[in-house]
Amino acid sequence: MRHNDRNHKQIRPIEIVPNFTKHAEGSVLITVGETKVICTATIENKVPPFLRGQKKGWLTAEYAMLPRATEQRTIREAAKGKLSGRTMEIQRLIGRCLRAVVDLDKLGEKTIWIDCDVIQADGGTRTAAITGAFVAMVLALQKTEGAEKRLVKDYLAAVSVGIVQGKGALCDLDYSEDSTADVDMNVVQTGNGAFVEIQGSGEEAVFSREQLNELLDLAEEGIKQLIEAQKSIIGELT
Amino acid sequence: MRHNDRNHKQIRPIEIVPNFTKHAEGSVLITVGETKVICTATIENKVPPFLRGQKKGWLTAEYAMLPRATEQRTIREAAKGKLSGRTMEIQRLIGRCLRAVVDLDKLGEKTIWIDCDVIQADGGTRTAAITGAFVAMVLALQKTEGAEKRLVKDYLAAVSVGIVQGKGALCDLDYSEDSTADVDMNVVQTGNGAFVEIQGSGEEAVFSREQLNELLDLAEEGIKQLIEAQKSIIGELT
Amino acid sequence: MRHNDRNHKQIRPIEIVPNFTKHAEGSVLITVGETKVICTATIENKVPPFLRGQKKGWLTAEYAMLPRATEQRTIREAAKGKLSGRTMEIQRLIGRCLRAVVDLDKLGEKTIWIDCDVIQADGGTRTAAITGAFVAMVLALQKTEGAEKRLVKDYLAAVSVGIVQGKGALCDLDYSEDSTADVDMNVVQTGNGAFVEIQGSGEEAVFSREQLNELLDLAEEGIKQLIEAQKSIIGELT
Amino acid sequence: MRHNDRNHKQIRPIEIVPNFTKHAEGSVLITVGETKVICTATIENKVPPFLRGQKKGWLTAEYAMLPRATEQRTIREAAKGKLSGRTMEIQRLIGRCLRAVVDLDKLGEKTIWIDCDVIQADGGTRTAAITGAFVAMVLALQKTEGAEKRLVKDYLAAVSVGIVQGKGALCDLDYSEDSTADVDMNVVQTGNGAFVEIQGSGEEAVFSREQLNELLDLAEEGIKQLIEAQKSIIGELT
Amino acid sequence: MRHNDRNHKQIRPIEIVPNFTKHAEGSVLITVGETKVICTATIENKVPPFLRGQKKGWLTAEYAMLPRATEQRTIREAAKGKLSGRTMEIQRLIGRCLRAVVDLDKLGEKTIWIDCDVIQADGGTRTAAITGAFVAMVLALQKTEGAEKRLVKDYLAAVSVGIVQGKGALCDLDYSEDSTADVDMNVVQTGNGAFVEIQGSGEEAVFSREQLNELLDLAEEGIKQLIEAQKSIIGELT
Amino acid sequence: MRHNDRNHKQIRPIEIVPNFTKHAEGSVLITVGETKVICTATIENKVPPFLRGQKKGWLTAEYAMLPRATEQRTIREAAKGKLSGRTMEIQRLIGRCLRAVVDLDKLGEKTIWIDCDVIQADGGTRTAAITGAFVAMVLALQKTEGAEKRLVKDYLAAVSVGIVQGKGALCDLDYSEDSTADVDMNVVQTGNGAFVEIQGSGEEAVFSREQLNELLDLAEEGIKQLIEAQKSIIGELT
Repeated sequence: MRHNDRNHKQIRPIEIVPNFTKHAEGSVLITVGETKVICTATIENKVPPFLRGQKKGWLTAEYAMLPRATEQRTIREAAKGKLSGRTMEIQRLIGRCLRAVVDLDKLGEKTIWIDCDVIQADGGTRTAAITGAFVAMVLALQKTEGAEKRLVKDYLAAVSVGIVQGKGALCDLDYSEDSTADVDMNVVQTGNGAFVEIQGSGEEAVFSREQLNELLDLAEEGIKQLIEAQKSIIGELT
Repeated sequence: MRHNDRNHKQIRPIEIVPNFTKHAEGSVLITVGETKVICTATIENKVPPFLRGQKKGWLTAEYAMLPRATEQRTIREAAKGKLSGRTMEIQRLIGRCLRAVVDLDKLGEKTIWIDCDVIQADGGTRTAAITGAFVAMVLALQKTEGAEKRLVKDYLAAVSVGIVQGKGALCDLDYSEDSTADVDMNVVQTGNGAFVEIQGSGEEAVFSREQLNELLDLAEEGIKQLIEAQKSIIGELT
Repeated sequence: MRHNDRNHKQIRPIEIVPNFTKHAEGSVLITVGETKVICTATIENKVPPFLRGQKKGWLTAEYAMLPRATEQRTIREAAKGKLSGRTMEIQRLIGRCLRAVVDLDKLGEKTIWIDCDVIQADGGTRTAAITGAFVAMVLALQKTEGAEKRLVKDYLAAVSVGIVQGKGALCDLDYSEDSTADVDMNVVQTGNGAFVEIQGSGEEAVFSREQLNELLDLAEEGIKQLIEAQKSIIGELT
Repeated sequence: MRHNDRNHKQIRPIEIVPNFTKHAEGSVLITVGETKVICTATIENKVPPFLRGQKKGWLTAEYAMLPRATEQRTIREAAKGKLSGRTMEIQRLIGRCLRAVVDLDKLGEKTIWIDCDVIQADGGTRTAAITGAFVAMVLALQKTEGAEKRLVKDYLAAVSVGIVQGKGALCDLDYSEDSTADVDMNVVQTGNGAFVEIQGSGEEAVFSREQLNELLDLAEEGIKQLIEAQKSIIGELT
Repeated sequence: MRHNDRNHKQIRPIEIVPNFTKHAEGSVLITVGETKVICTATIENKVPPFLRGQKKGWLTAEYAMLPRATEQRTIREAAKGKLSGRTMEIQRLIGRCLRAVVDLDKLGEKTIWIDCDVIQADGGTRTAAITGAFVAMVLALQKTEGAEKRLVKDYLAAVSVGIVQGKGALCDLDYSEDSTADVDMNVVQTGNGAFVEIQGSGEEAVFSREQLNELLDLAEEGIKQLIEAQKSIIGELT
Repeated sequence: MRHNDRNHKQIRPIEIVPNFTKHAEGSVLITVGETKVICTATIENKVPPFLRGQKKGWLTAEYAMLPRATEQRTIREAAKGKLSGRTMEIQRLIGRCLRAVVDLDKLGEKTIWIDCDVIQADGGTRTAAITGAFVAMVLALQKTEGAEKRLVKDYLAAVSVGIVQGKGALCDLDYSEDSTADVDMNVVQTGNGAFVEIQGSGEEAVFSREQLNELLDLAEEGIKQLIEAQKSIIGELT
């Protein structure tokens, strides 16, 4: 058994609070275990320069952590004057994943801005951000674009899986597990089980095809539960 | 009457949730009307270079807003690569005010980091930040330094007051009032009513000594109520 | 008596040299005691993006110190690649104050750029900058806009006051006084005695309502003398 | 058949020129089809601050493209003053992969700097960089550390695979293929076939478990050939 | 005799490889002794804002060194986030020199971008860059603008000369000579022997008019040989 | 005759006001025609990292222009967040020239900071800066180091010369002449007539050896007069 009484397949308790803040078109507070992320979606009536005049929309995502979201205080990126590589990597990932399930051609010349701000971190912040951002986006589209079905192709959720020393393959790692993992993998899937993104890497370690398959099986099961949680908030995409 | 049924003296409903996040030594979510700010206090066992070896502590504050804390999305300062003048002004103010009520000589060679992150803005974010940050700081000192009394000289709270066209002098302006104010003043006081900071400015307008006095009277009364709210969380400074 | 034989009410000798440099539409060298600031005003035939098409003007101010304006050399902000919080705070203050006495609606789609460059610092650089910049601005408007009366609502000058350990309330602090002050306050007033800005703060100290009033009385008297000096250069605003 | 007469399994012609520049401890020019990357390895006798005193080494990688490596000139990141998210992502990937096959504990307090500079780009620059950088690193370790076997655990090479509209799964995409791909995946493996990194993403598209397996099979075969090319330069790791 | 058996007048072996990379309109690899620079020329169909609508072209140059072009690794300017003064000085020099031999009025509203990237440095990188960039530019103009004669007024090449302790005046200094030189001078001339630029400076030393003349004589002779090498690639400017 | 009744050899009226500001160890206001530059010299008791422990001193220079030193307002480099290439080029030149006449070995582990701030520009700001900075430096060394003779090898002054369309070779160009010059050259010489720096460049033009010699003759004569002006302030270097 893992600490907190989870077996290797179990994801942490998940809670999604819709409309967490009042100004954004869509917003949620997503809680996965002790990880908490505020996700908002903003609909803007213009597109970036490279898309102007193409009658197509865009979606872009930003990600940040409050300084004391972490055990040790981290310096603000605004104070340093630049984004870290980790932040850039994560916000590119979030944006890419959401674009895979939105019909940008039908959106028209609008930009969806996704903002994911981690207020408390305990592992899996990027996957919680994706899972929460999807809900915030659907809420925003429901509010501003009428029926969202036309625009959203499928549900989208993400989970981290990994191989932890002495514990084998685990689903939904918390920080204490993640920081001792040999292999760390983020998996993003749609409601019908298709992959949108797989990012697996050995941390000064390597992994076999068998281990890969074991991890993907775990991820698939976890993501199904996350999508159930999404459905309980936003209902069926009709 | 003001919208929301307040008279000119009334402050908005205030709520302070202690220990809002788990990693920080001290943290609160302060809600003043529709303005919500997460304030955390971190105690670090070193001081900035200019104080090393002086057996004295330091306190520094940072302030930010989530992009969709505001009605229109604001660009992240981390993305722009620099802090705005407004942000710098506010974080210098917060730090200066808190330093006025902390005995830095007795703190020893430690730094108190205050982080104020606005998750929803409706006017008065800097004064809410000061009022909340004081509580987060005391919680952190209670937890890490034993009895905080030795270190904290007095309570500290802040309110904005202003002269609004057609409504005269008002206490605790919300955004709709603030954006039509001729005169805007932030007042910071201690528990025994001494001033720590007064910042009043005409917005393309001017004000008389009488108006100044009227505003200060309003502020004094509002701040007393804010300090009561603080006491309900942290108790008497004994 | 204060050093330099001043009593607590006395401001330092003030000199304003008009047309100090040849390219600017308006320029002065203002000397207050040993503090010397070059202030220039530039009239530009366009407004910032947020004002375009509104038939309204704008005024913006910048402030800097030469590296050896101070006793110890300070690093250039251009070399560091960013403005300090202090600089931002000061230039926002200068701009806000001058905008309070200019009729921007009548100016038309023009921007007044105020540049204040401290070539020698001995306390009170921001108040000297405001007092000097007002004259530079009026000179520029006289030269380019014909009669300035239409555009300038009133005179504007600033002074610092403070409570210094063992000396009580003083007017127009020099650096040696300022660096030992418990309370420091900048007061900006118009020709008819209305306030444009009050910024008072305790430096790890606090102050009472009585002390506030004493400081404001001192400031009022000092500002009257500064405005007389302005009048000797620019005459009556007719 | 693909353009250039390749079948879906075939990688492009590969050439690795060792000791391409004279100052670096190790350097190669790697050519994969029309993609050309200069990879150098530098051994520095110190480690970054976070590792000091731990008797452990470090490896870090940087990546850039010459402005005219691409069909359209790209602006220099040095001129823009910051690295793009893409660059950061790639250099973090290169570093992470190489660290997986180097025994940093045995290296001692040294840093291996990997520099990958693309002088001509035609798809697959990051995978060519990894494959070339591995050789440069081994050359540098052979030259400076004596027998490299002690330090290098296994060979390391990378290839891109993808699903291209109308052509199915392909190995080693060139730019024309990559820019029309629905799914794009970078696979990094060791000499014994273990995975170090898998990064697969749908470009506004998704993919199934079957497609994933097909892509991994293609990658495995391609990487074997790349490792043969590495062996022809650096020989067996003995 | 100098090391490498050169007498004081002799330039190092020079090689210019045309069309070194495939995407640029013009490109060369220029090798002068052990100094190697990739020079590319890009023709862009627009001009910078300050020239728009003037029916005139522009030429601008950028220069960089790969991190391990030098004996010790140099930090990337993109990683530091700014260009060094040395880089700015060199790229301004390259641009100014090339503009002296191009008829920008006849070019029309186009910009020629010159990129010089040093892949191996052994002294004289800026002069090699100028000599190589001229060839890349002519190749680009031949390819895109038809006969280049109309646009290019004359050949252009550069050499460094200097006074080295114990060796007197020398032509085409390599790094070991340059780093011990008392006087260092870069001379840029056209095919008919006219000067475009002279930059001579004493390195904590001074020089006489006679020494200046001796250096200019050496430079003139060296440049003639460099221009012969250019002619062997691009032929006569007809 | 040139405008202002100068012949081609004549330099503009020069005035050097010593001790222009009170805090710097040495300071002057140098006026050359309508060009005015404040030059200060600061002696700091440490050296940059690359010189520590070598018992040798250093000298470094910085240069800036006030925004309205020029006919059109120029944007502050501090506001833009970076130095222009022109500024970097000039401050490197000033530092290099002064280092040529200072005995850094005898200075000991100290740094001389030179600051040149142009308050009014009318051509020749960099040469005026060099000429004035030399005086400020000597004043600072006289004040802090006792007899400066030990440290300063010779006088140092600079002038610009150029070839102006329709007027031939001219000495000490003002802005109206400089902006129409075909060839522009800055010459820096010592008291005994040796060269420290020559920087000549054709502005989209070229020049012959004869023209070069004519310009150098003019410069030599002008510099002699500048050095006389320096001597009238600082006396003989004894």
